[in-house]
Amino acid sequence: MSAHQPSFQRPLRLGMVGGGEGAFIGAVHRIAARLDGEFELVAAALSSQAERAAASGAALGLDAGRCYADWREMARREAERADGIELVAIVTPNHLHAPVARAFLEAGIDVICDKPLAISVQEGRELAALVQARKRLLAVSYNYSAYPLLRHARELVRAGELGPLRLIQIEYAQDWLAEPLETQGHKQASWRCDPALAGPAGALGDIGTHAYQLACFVSGLRATAVAAELSSLLPGRQLDDNVQLMLRFDGGVRGALWASQVASGCENGLRLRIFGAKAGLEFNQEQPNQLRLSRLGGSSELLSRGRVDSAAARAATRLPPGHPEGYLEAFAQIYRDAAEHIRARQQGRAPSTESLALPQVSEGLAGLLFVDAALRSQLAGGAWTAVDDLSAEAAGQQSAHEETAK
Amino acid sequence: MSAHQPSFQRPLRLGMVGGGEGAFIGAVHRIAARLDGEFELVAAALSSQAERAAASGAALGLDAGRCYADWREMARREAERADGIELVAIVTPNHLHAPVARAFLEAGIDVICDKPLAISVQEGRELAALVQARKRLLAVSYNYSAYPLLRHARELVRAGELGPLRLIQIEYAQDWLAEPLETQGHKQASWRCDPALAGPAGALGDIGTHAYQLACFVSGLRATAVAAELSSLLPGRQLDDNVQLMLRFDGGVRGALWASQVASGCENGLRLRIFGAKAGLEFNQEQPNQLRLSRLGGSSELLSRGRVDSAAARAATRLPPGHPEGYLEAFAQIYRDAAEHIRARQQGRAPSTESLALPQVSEGLAGLLFVDAALRSQLAGGAWTAVDDLSAEAAGQQSAHEETAK
Amino acid sequence: MSAHQPSFQRPLRLGMVGGGEGAFIGAVHRIAARLDGEFELVAAALSSQAERAAASGAALGLDAGRCYADWREMARREAERADGIELVAIVTPNHLHAPVARAFLEAGIDVICDKPLAISVQEGRELAALVQARKRLLAVSYNYSAYPLLRHARELVRAGELGPLRLIQIEYAQDWLAEPLETQGHKQASWRCDPALAGPAGALGDIGTHAYQLACFVSGLRATAVAAELSSLLPGRQLDDNVQLMLRFDGGVRGALWASQVASGCENGLRLRIFGAKAGLEFNQEQPNQLRLSRLGGSSELLSRGRVDSAAARAATRLPPGHPEGYLEAFAQIYRDAAEHIRARQQGRAPSTESLALPQVSEGLAGLLFVDAALRSQLAGGAWTAVDDLSAEAAGQQSAHEETAK
Amino acid sequence: MSAHQPSFQRPLRLGMVGGGEGAFIGAVHRIAARLDGEFELVAAALSSQAERAAASGAALGLDAGRCYADWREMARREAERADGIELVAIVTPNHLHAPVARAFLEAGIDVICDKPLAISVQEGRELAALVQARKRLLAVSYNYSAYPLLRHARELVRAGELGPLRLIQIEYAQDWLAEPLETQGHKQASWRCDPALAGPAGALGDIGTHAYQLACFVSGLRATAVAAELSSLLPGRQLDDNVQLMLRFDGGVRGALWASQVASGCENGLRLRIFGAKAGLEFNQEQPNQLRLSRLGGSSELLSRGRVDSAAARAATRLPPGHPEGYLEAFAQIYRDAAEHIRARQQGRAPSTESLALPQVSEGLAGLLFVDAALRSQLAGGAWTAVDDLSAEAAGQQSAHEETAK
Repeated sequence: MSAHQPSFQRPLRLGMVGGGEGAFIGAVHRIAARLDGEFELVAAALSSQAERAAASGAALGLDAGRCYADWREMARREAERADGIELVAIVTPNHLHAPVARAFLEAGIDVICDKPLAISVQEGRELAALVQARKRLLAVSYNYSAYPLLRHARELVRAGELGPLRLIQIEYAQDWLAEPLETQGHKQASWRCDPALAGPAGALGDIGTHAYQLACFVSGLRATAVAAELSSLLPGRQLDDNVQLMLRFDGGVRGALWASQVASGCENGLRLRIFGAKAGLEFNQEQPNQLRLSRLGGSSELLSRGRVDSAAARAATRLPPGHPEGYLEAFAQIYRDAAEHIRARQQGRAPSTESLALPQVSEGLAGLLFVDAALRSQLAGGAWTAVDDLSAEAAGQQSAHEETAK
Repeated sequence: MSAHQPSFQRPLRLGMVGGGEGAFIGAVHRIAARLDGEFELVAAALSSQAERAAASGAALGLDAGRCYADWREMARREAERADGIELVAIVTPNHLHAPVARAFLEAGIDVICDKPLAISVQEGRELAALVQARKRLLAVSYNYSAYPLLRHARELVRAGELGPLRLIQIEYAQDWLAEPLETQGHKQASWRCDPALAGPAGALGDIGTHAYQLACFVSGLRATAVAAELSSLLPGRQLDDNVQLMLRFDGGVRGALWASQVASGCENGLRLRIFGAKAGLEFNQEQPNQLRLSRLGGSSELLSRGRVDSAAARAATRLPPGHPEGYLEAFAQIYRDAAEHIRARQQGRAPSTESLALPQVSEGLAGLLFVDAALRSQLAGGAWTAVDDLSAEAAGQQSAHEETAK
Repeated sequence: MSAHQPSFQRPLRLGMVGGGEGAFIGAVHRIAARLDGEFELVAAALSSQAERAAASGAALGLDAGRCYADWREMARREAERADGIELVAIVTPNHLHAPVARAFLEAGIDVICDKPLAISVQEGRELAALVQARKRLLAVSYNYSAYPLLRHARELVRAGELGPLRLIQIEYAQDWLAEPLETQGHKQASWRCDPALAGPAGALGDIGTHAYQLACFVSGLRATAVAAELSSLLPGRQLDDNVQLMLRFDGGVRGALWASQVASGCENGLRLRIFGAKAGLEFNQEQPNQLRLSRLGGSSELLSRGRVDSAAARAATRLPPGHPEGYLEAFAQIYRDAAEHIRARQQGRAPSTESLALPQVSEGLAGLLFVDAALRSQLAGGAWTAVDDLSAEAAGQQSAHEETAK
Repeated sequence: MSAHQPSFQRPLRLGMVGGGEGAFIGAVHRIAARLDGEFELVAAALSSQAERAAASGAALGLDAGRCYADWREMARREAERADGIELVAIVTPNHLHAPVARAFLEAGIDVICDKPLAISVQEGRELAALVQARKRLLAVSYNYSAYPLLRHARELVRAGELGPLRLIQIEYAQDWLAEPLETQGHKQASWRCDPALAGPAGALGDIGTHAYQLACFVSGLRATAVAAELSSLLPGRQLDDNVQLMLRFDGGVRGALWASQVASGCENGLRLRIFGAKAGLEFNQEQPNQLRLSRLGGSSELLSRGRVDSAAARAATRLPPGHPEGYLEAFAQIYRDAAEHIRARQQGRAPSTESLALPQVSEGLAGLLFVDAALRSQLAGGAWTAVDDLSAEAAGQQSAHEETAK
């Protein structure tokens, strides 16, 4: 695999907001942060109730003094400590993403935040501006784009292996909301189906943003317009649970996106297909060790993780082919990339080229613009609706990082 | 397999219009008609040029006297013969479907016609009326719906195994027009990309109608409205080669349809997924011996052709499980069903229940209504556009057949 | 597909011995013979009981005068007719294969016989000698080797794409005898589990010979020695229903063969893997439209039927890629190849190169030698046991045919 | 997933012998030990050269004082420390497994050792006796048996879902030694192909033992006799690189095992199929999130990791279905189970029932007995050769552990 072993670097200090008992994604972040030895969890605001915050923190082995009930206090006090956290992971319901991110960025602490980045475009633009002003990292845990074979797919597109792109088909099908769990005391379902906590988008925000980010990440394109059909297929559900979208991307590329949380029998069916004039690519998240490349008029190739030879894929790979890697390894890659960014700044150097694949604030904002356009299309009876541009500032921030690395 | 061998019935006499040298689908019809011994080809108008018609007919072993250059003459003369054809297969370019069908129906001869049934709704309605007036068969070769496992899928839906339906995802992805073959002397491509011969719909009519018919066949539903994005992704192409559609079906069921002939690396990727409150179904035409049934909260079942136990599937099955059947067998089923209809009428009895799965004029007309709505939506900038109802007459015709069988 | 349509050739006249009511394989032969229009069934000895023979013949549309109860009489009388059969298909239980084949060959009639060719090596050698003396065709319906992608696989091996061969893994797993059907009046099971009718080998002869032929066909090698473990996993069963074999092929190539009729949940799992120094090949009969070629250190390619470009594959292909062909089409290829052999002789020319892939008496005999060695190994407690050579005569016969074609 | 979060337990102190620069498996053990937060690496003998040991240790963040060049010294000094290691991972070449394990067990330190446990049966028996005498843990990193779906498979067998077992087919196909890497300076290949370091078995010991353990683990059976064909398919290779085995298991169950390191195009193809009178199971390590259960006469079920409901599977599962887990998670499970054993002893309680799936010395010894019988069969020309019984003592040790838990 890697030709040399990295010299040792101490684990960075990690904090967490959200992710107490019963949360799914908090535990995922903790494993991901630990898997490569890049981070050590040392502080957290796991609950806004002091007692639960303390109990949950103790269950994770945290010092009592660093178990906070108030994330504002946590930001302030950690920023004051000599051994304060160097990165905070935000794993709260969506409505808190932006306020919490703002608090830590203002305290000078780097942030990794769950998607969607915020619940409004306005929040997202403010975060983008803040990131640029404070020169801090705001990573977004678009974990699926960290699969080695998707990073390789992006390289194939960039290298012209597909020819000029024509079409992008993306789908994300789940069934966990096929029954009205939000009326049955299911914690995850309750906040994700509540507009006050999840924001105005249901499946669209929860998984549609993942799907859209993946399409953009691999293709290098952004949608210019969408026509949307958002549905609540379960009677009485307050947010959309099924989303059909037609998409127009830069340069006349066409696309469609389907996201559903009521597709009975589907588990976590995130699937991307991209077609160019010369070849097509297919990736299915449930079998992430394989990428299918089908050349026009030729045979289909099954590319194996661990065998593909781009630097981008190698940097995100731990095991040889045939030894399956999965969801946690891809999630850990987000943390590994974030660690590289933090260490590079600490060491006064540019982050590695490969780590620039880390999704940051501009990708988070692009997701919000996409959601916003879809919601507006829905209000307009499904009419084609333009997706707003990223502001010059936000775009600038991203390219600044990239130029640094050259 | 079948518990008893059928008693012998002489092959019916078949004629063909179109399908001369270089045609793909004509040869398919001939194998399909012969495979089960149901039909014997005895007359044809394989070309409008007399010399080619004679040469092509001779190459198929036809009597010189029954090789016609003019299909009108063929209809007239075959109708006059005591041993005239009992069914004509129409395998011409689309613009001739309706005129040829009309000629044979008026001559009292049953018809099996390639899809799309016609190039306008008006033509389709006239054929529906004619069928009703003349009491003749007008079958449409929607061959994919004759796969045993799709017939079984329809039974599963009817039996409520999926619960109330919610969602239909259908796609049909090919790549054979990913290069501009129509400018390179390719016969198939030339007529299929020429509005004068193919009608106003390209991929939409050629494969989109197959996809839509399949969705309707299995679900038992029809679309009430569509929002369409038809594209010609190859510059200069005169007809659409890529189609994105959002669909609303009866009863609030949502759907999407994607049909493409420029999806590089795709061969004949017709795939249907239907989701209900209790389970989802998935069928991929390229692996037609398998149907996936995934129950909410349970495991996925892979149902095997030859092992499923509905009468509908058994009637369309020749081999035990593990002995793959394919495209030709499904196509032959269309002919077997048509033979059963013809024999039943000759024998003064109702056709078998299973043979009622044969697609007929009302399904052909439904396809035209679908195409028409999609074209109108496209003209209206992708706006949601109502799909016209089948006329009472056309609907009546189909149910008349079905009632006979009860 | 094919660049030109063949000029018409009248169907050849086919006879059949065996295959009356309730038989599986007789019906398969009839469809296969008819599918490409190469043969017309005109005479048969479907049963040794006159009444059943007549009834079964009538059910197939045969003239009463050509429905025989005695296959000896059939051979004699058909040989005397000016319009007598030109090929006889033998689809009886195994013990009759050799006697019936002998009768027809001696009458000067070409033969296509189910596998195994006979129930003893001695019978097989006599048939080989008879074929050579009479210059008639004795084809063996090793239908699986007629899949286009297996014929292509053979070309890949011959062309050195795999490098020097090292290993052959072959398996054939079914479950239809996982219950003691032979004690429950099941016709197929009853004769196949009865040594008097099936010969001394059970699963070994019934499906092991198919598997072995496929390995030899694609690799171009024959086994030189075997070590066998034959088991009757159902108590009281008279013949083996599960077979484990280790194999040594020509040139030090190693292999293993597993054939089972009691592998619960397996349908018709015939799978071949061949490995050379440069690449490996995998073919699974249940998905015959796909061949996997995996190059050492490279990606796996999925080769599609209809897209591979060898003459061998093209000659056995009817449909473009994505339009699945199956078991019946491969079986029909055996008949198409046999027709080509018969017509070539009738026309005083060599058969086409592609039709030489037709399995003939030497492959049938090779199967018997394999079975014989396995039975002897079993008697010797599983010791490595040499597989006898084909006699010089038998080998000579095959190469004579092949030389003719050059 | 799990209904409650575990209360915090401090990470246990881990040591490592072997696994310095360039080693594959050492890095795997380190990630696995860390993934669930169960262990913290604090001491190591990464190389027998003092300088390299120190450099490698520093690269892993170890204190210089706990980087040893001599594992005997490490065992002695760690045993003396109050904060000494609580478990040592042995990841050396095979010939050192037993001596190192002995040293640490004698020092009272628990051990987790790579497979094969030793290079002779004698060594294995001595270790079994030592474990029993010292009441310490000797776990063997048969990591594949820790996949949740294989643990579930074992439960299905135990619950009788397959009916009485009949057949076990197991294969492990790789291609990484398809070229003579051992002559080209490849470190892994060099020791694994050298009898002095790897022991007398090549592919047989390296991967055949994994395959055999898996078969035994899921079936609950052990082989009673084997007939072996060990080959070195690359000329000049000193150890076997391809292994064919026929197996007889307890109770008349038949089986076959194929292990190869020269099967071009295979990555890490470990595949298990078990057949009983009622159903068959199939597991493919390269797609470990899916288990296929095929019932006789019924459909095949695809069971998903995360959805199956046995306690055994749940205990080894971190993520919901559709979120793929892989090789590292299964490896981590070995460490999690070992931690549970150690903590249970520290806390004076029995380990959890689920953690008893951890492979221990008796399974390691069973692997050695299997290898020994295969080597003896090979010497006897492939004759059926009895597999020795586990000694009463060794067997007793395992059941003692199990009884403790009841």
